[in-house]
Amino acid sequence: MPKEYSDIGLIGLAVMGQNLALNIADHGFQISVYNRTTEKTDKFIAENPNTPGGLVGTKTLEEFVKSLAKPRKMVILVQAGRATDAVIDGLVPLLEQDDIIIDGGNALWTDTIRREKALKEKGLRFIGSGVSGGEEGARFGPALMPGGDKAAYKELEKIWNAVAAKVDRKTGKPIPGAAPGKPVKGGVPCATYIGENGAGHYVKMVHNGIEYGDMQMICEAYAILKGVLGLKAAEMGAIFSEWNRGALDSFLIEITADILKQKDPVTKKPFVDIVLDTAGQKGTGKWTSVNALDMGVPAPTIAESVFARCLSAVKEERVAASKILKGPKAKSYTGSKKALIEAIHDALYCSKICSYAQGFQLMREAQKEYGWKLDFGRIAQIWRGGCIIRAAFLQKITEAYKKNPRLANLLLDPYFNKTIQTAQANWRKVVSLAVEHGISVPTFSSALSYYDGYRSARLPANLLQGQRDYFGAHTYERVDVKRGKFFHIDWPDAKRPQYEA
Amino acid sequence: MPKEYSDIGLIGLAVMGQNLALNIADHGFQISVYNRTTEKTDKFIAENPNTPGGLVGTKTLEEFVKSLAKPRKMVILVQAGRATDAVIDGLVPLLEQDDIIIDGGNALWTDTIRREKALKEKGLRFIGSGVSGGEEGARFGPALMPGGDKAAYKELEKIWNAVAAKVDRKTGKPIPGAAPGKPVKGGVPCATYIGENGAGHYVKMVHNGIEYGDMQMICEAYAILKGVLGLKAAEMGAIFSEWNRGALDSFLIEITADILKQKDPVTKKPFVDIVLDTAGQKGTGKWTSVNALDMGVPAPTIAESVFARCLSAVKEERVAASKILKGPKAKSYTGSKKALIEAIHDALYCSKICSYAQGFQLMREAQKEYGWKLDFGRIAQIWRGGCIIRAAFLQKITEAYKKNPRLANLLLDPYFNKTIQTAQANWRKVVSLAVEHGISVPTFSSALSYYDGYRSARLPANLLQGQRDYFGAHTYERVDVKRGKFFHIDWPDAKRPQYEA
Repeated sequence: MPKEYSDIGLIGLAVMGQNLALNIADHGFQISVYNRTTEKTDKFIAENPNTPGGLVGTKTLEEFVKSLAKPRKMVILVQAGRATDAVIDGLVPLLEQDDIIIDGGNALWTDTIRREKALKEKGLRFIGSGVSGGEEGARFGPALMPGGDKAAYKELEKIWNAVAAKVDRKTGKPIPGAAPGKPVKGGVPCATYIGENGAGHYVKMVHNGIEYGDMQMICEAYAILKGVLGLKAAEMGAIFSEWNRGALDSFLIEITADILKQKDPVTKKPFVDIVLDTAGQKGTGKWTSVNALDMGVPAPTIAESVFARCLSAVKEERVAASKILKGPKAKSYTGSKKALIEAIHDALYCSKICSYAQGFQLMREAQKEYGWKLDFGRIAQIWRGGCIIRAAFLQKITEAYKKNPRLANLLLDPYFNKTIQTAQANWRKVVSLAVEHGISVPTFSSALSYYDGYRSARLPANLLQGQRDYFGAHTYERVDVKRGKFFHIDWPDAKRPQYEA
Repeated sequence: MPKEYSDIGLIGLAVMGQNLALNIADHGFQISVYNRTTEKTDKFIAENPNTPGGLVGTKTLEEFVKSLAKPRKMVILVQAGRATDAVIDGLVPLLEQDDIIIDGGNALWTDTIRREKALKEKGLRFIGSGVSGGEEGARFGPALMPGGDKAAYKELEKIWNAVAAKVDRKTGKPIPGAAPGKPVKGGVPCATYIGENGAGHYVKMVHNGIEYGDMQMICEAYAILKGVLGLKAAEMGAIFSEWNRGALDSFLIEITADILKQKDPVTKKPFVDIVLDTAGQKGTGKWTSVNALDMGVPAPTIAESVFARCLSAVKEERVAASKILKGPKAKSYTGSKKALIEAIHDALYCSKICSYAQGFQLMREAQKEYGWKLDFGRIAQIWRGGCIIRAAFLQKITEAYKKNPRLANLLLDPYFNKTIQTAQANWRKVVSLAVEHGISVPTFSSALSYYDGYRSARLPANLLQGQRDYFGAHTYERVDVKRGKFFHIDWPDAKRPQYEA
């Protein structure tokens, strides 16, 4: 027997929307759903008759809105961009003061800022909430990154906390046990109010940028294992499984092991060997890189991971080039296999630390730019469960920021510093080895250059600034004069060959 | 005795504007000038009484416009962005059909597209012209990259050809001889119609992106010479002078030699040693990188050079970090000094080739996106003189595109291919050495990863796409099925630890 009014509503019944709706209903909340094509709604309702909370199908936006308890809470899960604006435009005339629209899509944070402002002027409240974890996360416990009107989030918090993944309060370990109809109980929810207006979507974007980095780094480790040691897919699967029991313990390492062990259903060959080497992308990694460039915050490793996908996409060009451009003379590796596997592990871990450091630097700068107050430790904590980058290692980040909320860079935290000290010889060895063997390692080497650059009291940019002063009179600062004083050398024109006196 | 109407006008008398105006007057054209503050105009006119063409100072925009022969040609050289729009808005009501506005600033090419369209609707013509070469170039011969209305450029061409730098028709060598009042005669002008609407400013932007790369690469060569071999500034100056007599012969290498040999006027120490290592930037390198990300064209080396400047900017953070983050155990280099210097030369040259290859790939993609028809050989040729990246090596690019205008990538040209084949062992050695010594080499290593990635028939992106299929059902293509068919594995949920069955 359904309640007269649903606790919440959801618009957009693609897989993510269906799964999040079922997750919400699993936790005892009655949820109204609406989809542009009614057949999809009907089918969804028919297939899921006995959820604990109950699903209510609606055929029009009017019916949908009328079915909700006030203040109404409506989650939009449609394609980011124009589709989101169209749904909002459709909803607005039907709503009343203080109703709450929640955008759960992968919106660009600046769109979220714009929408929140526009809706506030109409007396409506808006929450832009990152939802991470893919289809499975949405179904059984995503990481949720809501930003926007704080009072409005108070109204949503109970539901968001209920449906989110959970981690152990102390250890940060994800709490297992979710299944259809069996919600997870206890633990800290992987959901927290991130900050005003676009903060939630911003943090979700950085999450995705970091995810791009993680995935590319795993690929580079795989490329070296395969290219230098000549390992088979199943052997590499075993290595990733082992890594998943150590410091690299994470969802992406785990599924990598699964993928490497997977057989192709058609040929029975190793699955990875029949997959075409062209990676798609949906844009959030690009957004992260563009934002880094816009803010002037170095995030080269994340950008390299985006460019690596772009390069993978020009498959035909690469195949043609491979016949013309030769690599180095192949030297076979004669060292210890075990030692090299360990070194690759260390290179992956060190590179990962640098990539995360870059992501957190971005958030640090963005909070200044937008006046947010981000809790980096809590952000790392909510990423521990549900989302794609969930990893044991995030606990170390939570602890780092708990110890020192004003940490200037993750690299400076004693744990991460010590880790890199111990592992850097291996990291350098692996990058050198890849370079010798002609294996492309854009993120491993970029991360290392970031590390070596960040720890340089003196970079060669003095020469660069000298060049800028020479040809553009851009002036320079001096090492022996306080910052903020600018000097210029009147470079002798006579030295320029092009122009005789 | 001035003519009744000037041949051309120029708005904006900062250094670039003054110098370009003098250059135009040097070549016998009468030029009207206007500046927002009249004192600047008066001073400029008073200081330059006897130019061959003649300068005409004007005090209002009305007076300025009335002083020009029809169709009027007006060069704007003010700050890119709003200032340019403001000047255009001020001019429009004063102009007549077919008058020509020329924006010589560093405009974003999409602004140029917008402006050209808006002015065309008003019956006015617009040319967005890249002007490269800094203050000296503007004065004695810049490289000019005009885009926009082709018929309008015909009206401007005589002046643009006259003031541009000149190169030898056959060898491409810059023709020396320009000096105040002594225009260069003969040779091919470093000015050519690039293409419609924003094409000129686009190509100028790519020029600047390449310039960012060149400058950072020189800094990395310097960092290794200094860090591994412990050379003094003057010794390095001599090395760069020597390099300037070979394949690396270029303006930037030449001024690097000058800068390294320069003494600080205050302390008499080597100049570079007293310059603070923080590099500024004005945004065109960033634009290039953002555009690469937007188009999905790999230009990682250019992006790394932008991020390197960003990292140089956080000087205080780096100094603090340098006390905490340790590098590798210092090994002293015991090999041949001469061999290493040669290897660094080769690393620089190979990296440079990759960076230019990326820049030309950008232009290749942009011409598809915007419907331009770019002549890459001619673009390389006009960069041979006047502009900051002018280099002997550009002749090889001109020749490469002359031989094969449809070249898929500069790397595939026989000359560049052979060069890299010969030099790659040295390139790899230098990157490895920098990695071992803890010297940050973001562009050297990024360029190498680009090379190794581009020549890979098979990249590890198959694993990445497997991951995407696993957590996001993004599907994959197969190596044994024609492109365009998409597959999906129904990955077993049971394998996911988080969710018990």
